[in-house]
Amino acid sequence: MFRNFKTVPYVIFGRGAFNQLDAILSNKRKHPEGTMVFLVDDVFTDKDLATRIPAGPDDLILWVNVDHEPTTAYVDQLTARVREHGPGSPDGVIGIGGGSAMDLAKAVSLMLTNPGSAADYQGWDLIRYPGVYHVGVPTLAGTGAEASRTTVLCGPDKKLGINSDYTPFDQIVLDPELVSGAPADQRFFTGMDCYIHCVESLTGSYLNAFSQSYGEKAMELCRDVFLSGGPQSDDKLMVASYFGGMSIAYSQVGICHALSYGLSFVLGIHHGVGNCLAFDHLGEYYPDGVAEFHRMMARHGIELPRHRLPASGQQEMERMIDVALVLEPLWENALGPEWKRIMTRDKIKELYERILS
Amino acid sequence: MFRNFKTVPYVIFGRGAFNQLDAILSNKRKHPEGTMVFLVDDVFTDKDLATRIPAGPDDLILWVNVDHEPTTAYVDQLTARVREHGPGSPDGVIGIGGGSAMDLAKAVSLMLTNPGSAADYQGWDLIRYPGVYHVGVPTLAGTGAEASRTTVLCGPDKKLGINSDYTPFDQIVLDPELVSGAPADQRFFTGMDCYIHCVESLTGSYLNAFSQSYGEKAMELCRDVFLSGGPQSDDKLMVASYFGGMSIAYSQVGICHALSYGLSFVLGIHHGVGNCLAFDHLGEYYPDGVAEFHRMMARHGIELPRHRLPASGQQEMERMIDVALVLEPLWENALGPEWKRIMTRDKIKELYERILS
Repeated sequence: MFRNFKTVPYVIFGRGAFNQLDAILSNKRKHPEGTMVFLVDDVFTDKDLATRIPAGPDDLILWVNVDHEPTTAYVDQLTARVREHGPGSPDGVIGIGGGSAMDLAKAVSLMLTNPGSAADYQGWDLIRYPGVYHVGVPTLAGTGAEASRTTVLCGPDKKLGINSDYTPFDQIVLDPELVSGAPADQRFFTGMDCYIHCVESLTGSYLNAFSQSYGEKAMELCRDVFLSGGPQSDDKLMVASYFGGMSIAYSQVGICHALSYGLSFVLGIHHGVGNCLAFDHLGEYYPDGVAEFHRMMARHGIELPRHRLPASGQQEMERMIDVALVLEPLWENALGPEWKRIMTRDKIKELYERILS
Repeated sequence: MFRNFKTVPYVIFGRGAFNQLDAILSNKRKHPEGTMVFLVDDVFTDKDLATRIPAGPDDLILWVNVDHEPTTAYVDQLTARVREHGPGSPDGVIGIGGGSAMDLAKAVSLMLTNPGSAADYQGWDLIRYPGVYHVGVPTLAGTGAEASRTTVLCGPDKKLGINSDYTPFDQIVLDPELVSGAPADQRFFTGMDCYIHCVESLTGSYLNAFSQSYGEKAMELCRDVFLSGGPQSDDKLMVASYFGGMSIAYSQVGICHALSYGLSFVLGIHHGVGNCLAFDHLGEYYPDGVAEFHRMMARHGIELPRHRLPASGQQEMERMIDVALVLEPLWENALGPEWKRIMTRDKIKELYERILS
């Protein structure tokens, strides 16, 4: 059985494409007074982009804070604020920001039409009703959230996505100009989400020609951006991210993402940073990829932030191991069907100790 | 202004994916007795594939002949046959075959819900109502018809597509096993549609990072298939075709396609063959591409069919030139805004004379 892969049905790509968002949304406003909800990363509150959001007088702008990874509780809270804004569903939800802001927009869109808490839907194909029309506008490139069928959330007891055919955006606006203002570190960590994803999927056992082609091109573009640079880097990185997201169709990530999930859930470390912290120590499993990653870091003068686990953090360590071990397909993709013999709790602990030393 | 590109929202890729078509269609049958129309290339009437079509007792199988390029008259005739089959629209139209069969399925799907003749809709965004749910199942790879927003038809006075956001398939089933039985010549000519498309778009002036990335990967896959070969060739060629179709978003073809349209419309030469006949003589414009094309021909022992224009064919010549000259964006993409100074009627005539000598 092959997955029947749901793609984003409308894609607009180009420098300045953000200026067309108003026209795109106009076609989706059901009444002249139809409401749109813009869910925007609050780093933009005092930036030029804030003045360019095509919000009408009845629209709602929700500034979201993503200093921490998005939680199901935050999704529930944002959904409640949209409901308070007026009766009936809005005509659309537009997420503007990095992977976290886009994931929040996807999740709010779904929770406006599905009862209960976002935590009830963490898993696969639990969503029962289509969400509100939702649009993704990435301002960081690398997560692939603009193309994926998941929205990754930290819930009360797990970090897991709401995976469904209703999750992908109905429209994405890929404007490379929007990513040019990102801080260098953040740009790097987010871009590495794509690069590491490609290393893991292309060396894994779950792969076919469709996903391989997307993954190979995404990796080539990442190399181009982070080892050569050049005037088209923002454009290429944006395509790399979209291709990385598309390659998920028939591939899987691996050891690095599994460990990174534990770091995020237990220590609150952002996904892109968590990936880099883990990948830094995975030369044993991905020798070529890690060596190239180190060259990219050196070229961009990146220093990884240090995180330490105190000696008293034995309980946190056990929880991180639990979170990582849940992700069975990732381990199997990386290490084969006998992965449990290789990747014992002790081995994972040893890796986490190195990462957090 | 950038095009808001409509993609195919559901893609399934894999060897044997055709076996999942029945399950996919089951979800779209509105009543247990809902009717599906299978529009299938008649080369398969006595092939194994014919026995695998998941048609129920109330479904209609229309065997279509595509010895000649699809015409608007043929679309009208097929649409009438579907209407005669029963009251109301069918639940779906499924095109199984190469680019011509898939284009017929797209066009019939649209004409079941839009009044008049298919000829009325040749052009851009003339379709007013969404078509019937339609599915594409390619059995040849290279045309990109599975991914494109057009269905190319020969009408009473032009060869031109029905281009609209309603044209793309709602679902495609990409099963590399289906292309393995194609005759070697046909496989080559169809594959070259993709390769030549890439040469034209990547050397043209209409391009951005999105289309360039798709085009470059499609070209790399074509090289891999036609210069190296190997066990995954069918899989790679199928991805190349899909990527070629996706690359159309922000790119354009060029001289070869413009000339090929004239050959098809006036002399009835099939699109893939027409491309190869024209490209063979375009070394002046695409030196690297044509040299590589010749290496691919040599490796596969391909001889191009010869077509001649009799001395009395002056009227046909003038019509071919007319048809080719209509395609202004193609010429501008290839030769720049001053293309009319370079590509005179005399120059096009000289090229056609070489092609048809």
